[in-house]
Amino acid sequence: MSAPVRYDEYLQIDKILSAQQRISELKGRPAHDEMLFIIIHQVYELWFKQMLFELSRVLEIFNQAKVKDSELQTVVRALERINEIFRILVQQVTVLETMTPFDFLDFRNDLYPASGFQSLQFRILETQLGLAASKRVSFAGTSYINHLPPDQKLIIEKELTRPSLKEGLEKWLERTPFVSEGTFDFWKTYFTSVQTMFAEDMEMVRKNPRLNEEEKAQSIKRLESSLHQFKSLESDEEFEKLKTAGLFEFSRKATLSALFIMIYNHEPILHNPFQIMDHLQDLDESITQWRSRHAQMAHRMIGVKIGTGGSSGADYLHKTVTQQKLFSDFSNLSTFLIPRSKIPALPENIRKKMGFTDF
Amino acid sequence: MSAPVRYDEYLQIDKILSAQQRISELKGRPAHDEMLFIIIHQVYELWFKQMLFELSRVLEIFNQAKVKDSELQTVVRALERINEIFRILVQQVTVLETMTPFDFLDFRNDLYPASGFQSLQFRILETQLGLAASKRVSFAGTSYINHLPPDQKLIIEKELTRPSLKEGLEKWLERTPFVSEGTFDFWKTYFTSVQTMFAEDMEMVRKNPRLNEEEKAQSIKRLESSLHQFKSLESDEEFEKLKTAGLFEFSRKATLSALFIMIYNHEPILHNPFQIMDHLQDLDESITQWRSRHAQMAHRMIGVKIGTGGSSGADYLHKTVTQQKLFSDFSNLSTFLIPRSKIPALPENIRKKMGFTDF
Amino acid sequence: MSAPVRYDEYLQIDKILSAQQRISELKGRPAHDEMLFIIIHQVYELWFKQMLFELSRVLEIFNQAKVKDSELQTVVRALERINEIFRILVQQVTVLETMTPFDFLDFRNDLYPASGFQSLQFRILETQLGLAASKRVSFAGTSYINHLPPDQKLIIEKELTRPSLKEGLEKWLERTPFVSEGTFDFWKTYFTSVQTMFAEDMEMVRKNPRLNEEEKAQSIKRLESSLHQFKSLESDEEFEKLKTAGLFEFSRKATLSALFIMIYNHEPILHNPFQIMDHLQDLDESITQWRSRHAQMAHRMIGVKIGTGGSSGADYLHKTVTQQKLFSDFSNLSTFLIPRSKIPALPENIRKKMGFTDF
Amino acid sequence: MSAPVRYDEYLQIDKILSAQQRISELKGRPAHDEMLFIIIHQVYELWFKQMLFELSRVLEIFNQAKVKDSELQTVVRALERINEIFRILVQQVTVLETMTPFDFLDFRNDLYPASGFQSLQFRILETQLGLAASKRVSFAGTSYINHLPPDQKLIIEKELTRPSLKEGLEKWLERTPFVSEGTFDFWKTYFTSVQTMFAEDMEMVRKNPRLNEEEKAQSIKRLESSLHQFKSLESDEEFEKLKTAGLFEFSRKATLSALFIMIYNHEPILHNPFQIMDHLQDLDESITQWRSRHAQMAHRMIGVKIGTGGSSGADYLHKTVTQQKLFSDFSNLSTFLIPRSKIPALPENIRKKMGFTDF
Repeated sequence: MSAPVRYDEYLQIDKILSAQQRISELKGRPAHDEMLFIIIHQVYELWFKQMLFELSRVLEIFNQAKVKDSELQTVVRALERINEIFRILVQQVTVLETMTPFDFLDFRNDLYPASGFQSLQFRILETQLGLAASKRVSFAGTSYINHLPPDQKLIIEKELTRPSLKEGLEKWLERTPFVSEGTFDFWKTYFTSVQTMFAEDMEMVRKNPRLNEEEKAQSIKRLESSLHQFKSLESDEEFEKLKTAGLFEFSRKATLSALFIMIYNHEPILHNPFQIMDHLQDLDESITQWRSRHAQMAHRMIGVKIGTGGSSGADYLHKTVTQQKLFSDFSNLSTFLIPRSKIPALPENIRKKMGFTDF
Repeated sequence: MSAPVRYDEYLQIDKILSAQQRISELKGRPAHDEMLFIIIHQVYELWFKQMLFELSRVLEIFNQAKVKDSELQTVVRALERINEIFRILVQQVTVLETMTPFDFLDFRNDLYPASGFQSLQFRILETQLGLAASKRVSFAGTSYINHLPPDQKLIIEKELTRPSLKEGLEKWLERTPFVSEGTFDFWKTYFTSVQTMFAEDMEMVRKNPRLNEEEKAQSIKRLESSLHQFKSLESDEEFEKLKTAGLFEFSRKATLSALFIMIYNHEPILHNPFQIMDHLQDLDESITQWRSRHAQMAHRMIGVKIGTGGSSGADYLHKTVTQQKLFSDFSNLSTFLIPRSKIPALPENIRKKMGFTDF
Repeated sequence: MSAPVRYDEYLQIDKILSAQQRISELKGRPAHDEMLFIIIHQVYELWFKQMLFELSRVLEIFNQAKVKDSELQTVVRALERINEIFRILVQQVTVLETMTPFDFLDFRNDLYPASGFQSLQFRILETQLGLAASKRVSFAGTSYINHLPPDQKLIIEKELTRPSLKEGLEKWLERTPFVSEGTFDFWKTYFTSVQTMFAEDMEMVRKNPRLNEEEKAQSIKRLESSLHQFKSLESDEEFEKLKTAGLFEFSRKATLSALFIMIYNHEPILHNPFQIMDHLQDLDESITQWRSRHAQMAHRMIGVKIGTGGSSGADYLHKTVTQQKLFSDFSNLSTFLIPRSKIPALPENIRKKMGFTDF
Repeated sequence: MSAPVRYDEYLQIDKILSAQQRISELKGRPAHDEMLFIIIHQVYELWFKQMLFELSRVLEIFNQAKVKDSELQTVVRALERINEIFRILVQQVTVLETMTPFDFLDFRNDLYPASGFQSLQFRILETQLGLAASKRVSFAGTSYINHLPPDQKLIIEKELTRPSLKEGLEKWLERTPFVSEGTFDFWKTYFTSVQTMFAEDMEMVRKNPRLNEEEKAQSIKRLESSLHQFKSLESDEEFEKLKTAGLFEFSRKATLSALFIMIYNHEPILHNPFQIMDHLQDLDESITQWRSRHAQMAHRMIGVKIGTGGSSGADYLHKTVTQQKLFSDFSNLSTFLIPRSKIPALPENIRKKMGFTDF
């Protein structure tokens, strides 16, 4: 039996609450709202720590040669927690927005050149999730990494050498069982089904007495273009083009597995894998929302640069919103879905291995 | 020109991020979810500090002999900020709820006897807002104050001797101008109007050919009982009964002013006062929601006490939800509203002083 | 190929947007805020319809003799959707709160005797989830059911004869496999483990040189009382007492299965069952929050009844918050958890049946 | 006394709840999730109606030759209500996201060519707020207006001829009193202050012994460029360039008034005007967020177009996010703020007219 625990000592409240030093106060003209500025950023950092803590467990799991289903559930829950935290991060921007630009100006210049987008933890988080250095929007003409203090630059460079969640996911997806087993080759069956479906659709158009020739030509063209999209999945060469175009980052094998998981997500063994994909898309949306709210808030606080060649922080932030997506591979998969009725049935022996006893 | 500021040094990130020590880890069997437990409570404490910081400015303003309108706007904004923070506090309970009771059990006993409702800052906040010691739900048979460590008990006792927001508000409300000015006595006019209105309503009931005698009697009784409610405002003696019944804490004078503000809230000079009343009701609802969510979460985490005489922490929390309201005075005011068409018009010379030039 | 679909025709926008008739307008003195009052209630009703639609699928699944795991996933998702809707229902109370009590008074009496808690769909929802008629708070001295118009009363009475979600769940829980299989009897093992754990704890207390006799007695008493709680689960007779006390509504068999699911929730086959229990607790919290916000809002809008014997609508609403919980059985389960290290391991042949191939 | 009102009749529940007809059901293969799709869009339309109802009152107020302060408060509250509604609209996207792309595919083609961005009410809302036809992102090579059915096209064209909120605001801002009164010319004073401030800053740089020549040159350049920004406000010619560059839509006179309101927002008479500007920025952010979430959701549901020249609906939506801002004039104002200590004091006779008696 140990000494009784005191709430304030346990939580190190004194330490936490003595870490707010307003520069404006040090300079003898305290700006009331600087306290909010400090505290909200510290809250962000605490949440970032928690997310990194969850993520480290997830990375450990995916860095194994094999992953157990019970571990997948741990991943699902970790992502659910991270997503709940992100919901809060996005919502609490409204707290900072109770500060007017004029109140911000009371201490804004005191912070120079520090600014709100210099959180090391957030950079680590992005890197561990899988944001490639090459995808980062550059700022003031050079890679964002060169804007970091040397000690932090080293840390990020080291992080970049470790396998990210995205890389771990890719290898795990490539191992997805059942896609091809014994004489069963899922993709052969799937593409045959796609082919038949489009052939039937085109036939229906050609025979449709209510369409004139021009309308028919237009419909056929639309169907051909849709069919053509599927070709990109059928060979490594074609898929490479999608990767070059920035539409996919995963390998073709991993991408096909992800599609398989999406299609058969109701099978028990694919439940957790599907949730992981789903939660990562939610995470991506949350990060995007957070960037977007942050960019708008910065715009509102500091205005715009007029008549200079230089780009502003707000511009930079706006670009990160659309260009630094992490898991658009999964969203882009929807391009390759076909109606449920056209999906080939799984062989019974395989389907059986994917589930449990009913009760 | 001062030395360039570094984001991490300015925010004392090292200090903030080195304040998480899991007891379960010290004991050699780290419980993953203890990190979340520590971090979310630290986040709460940071937000409490911010709310106390805002509140201290508000208290300073109300502790003056006179309050300027521009200061009232400072109060309005401080309350808006506090309310936005409370929205977040309520919402982030969902983050803690990603922890299962079973995961909590991994470190729950390590914390004994600390628990989540021992935040000194939150006790100070309640006290400064105006929660009287007498209104506090007692725990395990004695005033909550006796459960505090001696150093914290002293702090709360000292806080209790300082004027709270509720007391400051009361004095300020009592000073509300225009309620009685020159020959104009608002309340005389108001109660006459109330009297006339009810007399007319009763007459209408009596003459209504579609009602039988029993229905008439019932309607008359309902109207009389409504009219009777207004009597409580007309004399100090009657009003005292409402105070004894716990319906009001403010003086009759302050209560009447609050009603005046509610009724004429569209007049420019009453805009800020009305917003203050409105925001305090929002705050009360947020605190109630926070208590309620907290109580439910505790119930879910630790279950119930079975077959013992002792009350549980969850029971205590449930009671605080309904019994520790702070500003129900304002909600109760709605009892005394009469339809807009029956409201006496303000004398023109008074109405003019309440506004500005139009443009 | 069918006729091209028009957005407005498909959604029957004309019908939806022509269903707002303000009584105050009919009476020649239009109250601006009555529009909001109508629209927000219609929005509530639309969401209620959606929730009932989801619930009907869930009920169908649980009304079967056996439930497939892929169907359980359908249930999980239906509950997730219902919970997201409830989050919105709670949050949108803030929209109604932009109306002041004084603005409400402009049309409040026109609505008499209708009020906001007369939604038939919401009553059906409560009933289908499993709110027993006996648990309902009575209003104005009689069962709420007697306040309904005769046509609606009939509908609810019919609903009460159909199996509710709670009843379906109970039967399904009772069928949980693996709890007792071959020579393995989970509960025997579990209670033995509980017994041993408490015996060891008591022994530790007795031998602890740092405690005096009084402290030892107190600790022993606390442990005995905890141990005693577990007795309630061990026999039908003892468990019946918990049911009489209102702590549990499920049968002992269903309750034990729920505890089993909670304890072994990481096993793949229990993933969906655990999520269902978890989501139902979230749902219960959301309903409680919704009732609570609704009650507070009503209080704020109409004030209190003073000096009459009759109870007000606000009082009634406040009571429903605490007394009409639906799934507290699950929250109460946490009472019976023991630390992970004391949980008996499952026999390997059983554990194997609960999972899949790793990959 | 009128007939007793029934909740369901009053709210026309039958009408509302009989307006959901799934096409997939008509076609004999009911898709479960189509119900959600219909209901959430109907909920959106109900909220749009409410927002238009609030907006029509606001437009009426701004279409007057003079606006009373009590009317400004009506505007403030209307905007607060609209903003609360928008918070909900953004949040409820999470409900639609409980639908998987695969479930959407079950009825997606049945809706062809209808899609979610064809709400007439939303187009009216944008137009009434002030979105110019010229600012709209074109779709499939032509103005969005040409994609509307002829009846709707007429309605929007008519709306475009009526004064929008943005136009009403502009005229009202231009009438702002006190900016120039008697011998006082605010802007002359302000620009003198700006000039002096920058001259002092440059002098400080030149005299700073810690800077080398290159650093001095760089700092001076930065200050000159900042000073240069203010020149844009000083003459109609320079300001016209900002308008051409798309940075401002308001006239120079209106823009200067808005800056005046921002700077002296604590003066009672400017309280409501400032809140209006603040709330419109919140509204702009909410609309942006809503567009952004909507675009992401569409991307997730339908994927991307590969290898076709045509732009997709998702691309179109993404463009609207950044290009269809309504009130960035206000955000851009922050560019022209100077520190509080440099702000010229208002002449006492003017300041007095801006406030009330203190109490």
